[in-house]
Amino acid sequence: MGYHEFTIEGRNAVIEAYRSGKTIDKLFILDGCQDGPVMTIKREAKKNDTLVKFVTKERLDQMSETGKHQGVIAIAAAYDYASVEDILNNAKKKGEQPFIFILDNIEDPHNLGAIIRTANLSGAHGVIIPKNRAAGLTATVARTSAGALNYTPVAKVTNLAKTIEDLKKEGLWFVCADMDGQVMYDLDLKGPIGLVIGNEGEGVGRLVKEKCDMVASIPMKGDIDSLNASVAAGVLAFEIVRQRRS
Amino acid sequence: MGYHEFTIEGRNAVIEAYRSGKTIDKLFILDGCQDGPVMTIKREAKKNDTLVKFVTKERLDQMSETGKHQGVIAIAAAYDYASVEDILNNAKKKGEQPFIFILDNIEDPHNLGAIIRTANLSGAHGVIIPKNRAAGLTATVARTSAGALNYTPVAKVTNLAKTIEDLKKEGLWFVCADMDGQVMYDLDLKGPIGLVIGNEGEGVGRLVKEKCDMVASIPMKGDIDSLNASVAAGVLAFEIVRQRRS
Repeated sequence: MGYHEFTIEGRNAVIEAYRSGKTIDKLFILDGCQDGPVMTIKREAKKNDTLVKFVTKERLDQMSETGKHQGVIAIAAAYDYASVEDILNNAKKKGEQPFIFILDNIEDPHNLGAIIRTANLSGAHGVIIPKNRAAGLTATVARTSAGALNYTPVAKVTNLAKTIEDLKKEGLWFVCADMDGQVMYDLDLKGPIGLVIGNEGEGVGRLVKEKCDMVASIPMKGDIDSLNASVAAGVLAFEIVRQRRS
Repeated sequence: MGYHEFTIEGRNAVIEAYRSGKTIDKLFILDGCQDGPVMTIKREAKKNDTLVKFVTKERLDQMSETGKHQGVIAIAAAYDYASVEDILNNAKKKGEQPFIFILDNIEDPHNLGAIIRTANLSGAHGVIIPKNRAAGLTATVARTSAGALNYTPVAKVTNLAKTIEDLKKEGLWFVCADMDGQVMYDLDLKGPIGLVIGNEGEGVGRLVKEKCDMVASIPMKGDIDSLNASVAAGVLAFEIVRQRRS
């Protein structure tokens, strides 16, 4: 596993990249461009939930490495996503009870990077993210993960609720973080576990929450609503670490 | 403590600022924006006689320091730093053992904001930062703190080591986070306490570390070096919360 980011420039090259299933994180298109190939690219982008930015020619010229962008530059991830099976095998290889982070739509790449870093250091075997508007493995994520992205497998799945069901068959229990849950110290978090962390603004989605066996809350004392998502993930992850040690 | 213009960006941050009674001089709202949070902000603005200007997205983007204004930027009175005494009085007023965060050169404003947010929610009575290259209270910090900056006093001191010495005379014990320390579960963190968090790259400085009574480590299992500073602060703060509950 490794990560680097590279640009793909020009209409055909970008269309080809989509057709071959490459992961494209971001797309820069010349503002106002409406011809056939560009419309094809826009359709592909929509289908793949790629973040699209419409920019000026000057901006594209500046970004371009080849000088031949034809109005389109894609930023692709050279990171290989793992499969959920890879993550389970990672636990098996280490002879440990599976401990997996499930991220329900973390949108801020700084949070995603920090959480992957936490996953690595808390001894989790992998991170699962959804294929949708959530942040993908971009350069910012790689940098914020402080190298963890090279060690901790990250899998991207279409349907988190479905993945949780599948993993339950493998013996995992699922705990999600929510303010209305039971105080985390009172829960038994020692077994094979999936820790579900919700979106920054909206928390864990209803469908995913319904699949969880336990809802854990962090005891809060202050005046405001909630911790930063990556801090909350860290506090919960190390409560799992604490319980597993004893 | 100067008086200068201070921007607050993002819907939640602006709503929180109003709720906590901050003086907002001027409000810039994206023209045509009509959703719930923006209507709440408009109502608050009317109640508080804030001057409101409806502007284009370009104008907001130009003004924004964080790039994440969500259609709302407020210009507020400059933030007043608290004194160390204010923080101690805050604890006294609540009839609680003092619990203070000491940040030894946190440089990233996102980390500073997230840590102030954590300080608020873990029930800490204040945050002390040094007057030097460390991040100060900027718009990014205010936004990342998610409103906590309006409740949790932040003091800025010239010499952290000296401040720690003074606070020891008030009965506080100091624990700093470092990998070579004792596992945090084995330390007694129940009394009046100062939690010292080091710089993102270099950790806690030597002079400050020498003043600390205890060095606490978070038990790490992974392949990389250390947690994100705001995550580490969160994990340690909630270990203090856990010990104080029992």
